[in-house]
Amino acid sequence: MEELSVKNEERIMAKIKIDNNVFGFPMPTVLVGSVVAGKANFMAVGWISRVNASPPMIAVALGAHHTNKGIEENKAFSVNIPDLSLVAETDYCGLISGATTDKSELFEIFYGEIKAAPLIAACPLCMACKLYNAVNLPSNTLYIGEIVEVFSEERYLTEGKPDIKKINPFTLSMPDNNYWGVGEHAGRAWHAGKGLKKNK
Amino acid sequence: MEELSVKNEERIMAKIKIDNNVFGFPMPTVLVGSVVAGKANFMAVGWISRVNASPPMIAVALGAHHTNKGIEENKAFSVNIPDLSLVAETDYCGLISGATTDKSELFEIFYGEIKAAPLIAACPLCMACKLYNAVNLPSNTLYIGEIVEVFSEERYLTEGKPDIKKINPFTLSMPDNNYWGVGEHAGRAWHAGKGLKKNK
Repeated sequence: MEELSVKNEERIMAKIKIDNNVFGFPMPTVLVGSVVAGKANFMAVGWISRVNASPPMIAVALGAHHTNKGIEENKAFSVNIPDLSLVAETDYCGLISGATTDKSELFEIFYGEIKAAPLIAACPLCMACKLYNAVNLPSNTLYIGEIVEVFSEERYLTEGKPDIKKINPFTLSMPDNNYWGVGEHAGRAWHAGKGLKKNK
Repeated sequence: MEELSVKNEERIMAKIKIDNNVFGFPMPTVLVGSVVAGKANFMAVGWISRVNASPPMIAVALGAHHTNKGIEENKAFSVNIPDLSLVAETDYCGLISGATTDKSELFEIFYGEIKAAPLIAACPLCMACKLYNAVNLPSNTLYIGEIVEVFSEERYLTEGKPDIKKINPFTLSMPDNNYWGVGEHAGRAWHAGKGLKKNK
C-alpha cells in the first residue's frame, strides 16, 4: 500500500492543466434523422446519451443545424446507429449540411408510427423519438426525446436484445476527430468490481 | 443501384420492433465525483455526453443516487475517465452506494480550484465542473456542468491534447452490461465521407 501511495503521489505531481475542450472518451456515433420542409435529413452526432430510464429517453446536443428546424417543427426525430460499413456515409452526413444538399436519397428510409422520424434501413438499430423537451444552452440545444419505437433485425439480436458484437457500431474521439471500432471484451458491468467488495 | 435497392427493401422487410430500452452504442464510461457530507464519493456513469461547445459543458444523467446530494449542495462535480486498468474499481463504484459505504479512500484524490470536485490521480483525464443547470426528468436528473479545469499527464497527450490510444479508456454496452476496450481505427471524422461529395 505504501508503494502504491508513493506512485499516486508521483502521478499527482505529474498532472498538468490542459485545454477545457475535452470529451467523454470515446463517444457513440449516430445518425439523427428529421424531416425538414418535407424532406428527410440526417446528421452525424457524437453528443448523445440516454438521459432517463423510465420512460426511455435519449438526448442529442446540436449546434445551430438544419436538423433543428425539423425537430422543432415536428416535435420528433430519430436516432439511427450505423455499423462499421457505414463510416463514409455517416461522416458525409456530418460534412454536408441539409441546408445546401438534399440528403433524402442517401439512404433507403422507412417509418414507424412517427412520420417525422425517418429511419435508415441500412442501420442495425433505429429509434423513433418524440420530442420531450428542448433545453437551450449557450451554443447548443439539447433535444430530449422519448424513445417510442425501436426497430432492429433478428440477426442483430441475442435473446431479443441488441448485441453489440453483431451490430458492430463505431465510436468517435474528439478533439482528434477519429472513428474507432469496438475492441476486446473488458469485463461484465455490475460484476467486475465484486471482488473489491470483500476487502472494504 | 437496382440491386442495392432490392437489398434495402429486404432489410426493411426484416425489421422488427423491439423493446424501447435501448442505448447509444457503446457509451463512454466515467467516474463522477462529488463531495457528500464532507466526504469524496464516486459513481460509475455511462449516461454522459458533451452538451455545449462554448463554453465546454458536459452532462451526466443520474437516477436517485447519493452523488446527487453532493452535486446539488455544492453545485459542483467531477468527471474522471478511467483506463482499462481501472475496470474493477470503476465497476465497484457502480455496485456500491456511497450512502452505505465510504468510497473516499478507494482512490488517491487531488483537487483543482473547485474543492467539491474530487479528481482521481489514477485517471488519465480529469474534469472539474461547475453545475450550470439541473434538468428534472421523470426518473433521472440531468446535471449539466461547465468544464472549468481539466487535468491530464504529459504521457497521455499528443500535441497537448488527450490521445485516445495513450489513454486507453473503455466503453459500456447496455442492456447486456459489458465493458469494451477501444478497437481499430475506422477512419478520420470530417474526412472519411469526402469521397461521397463528388457523386452528389
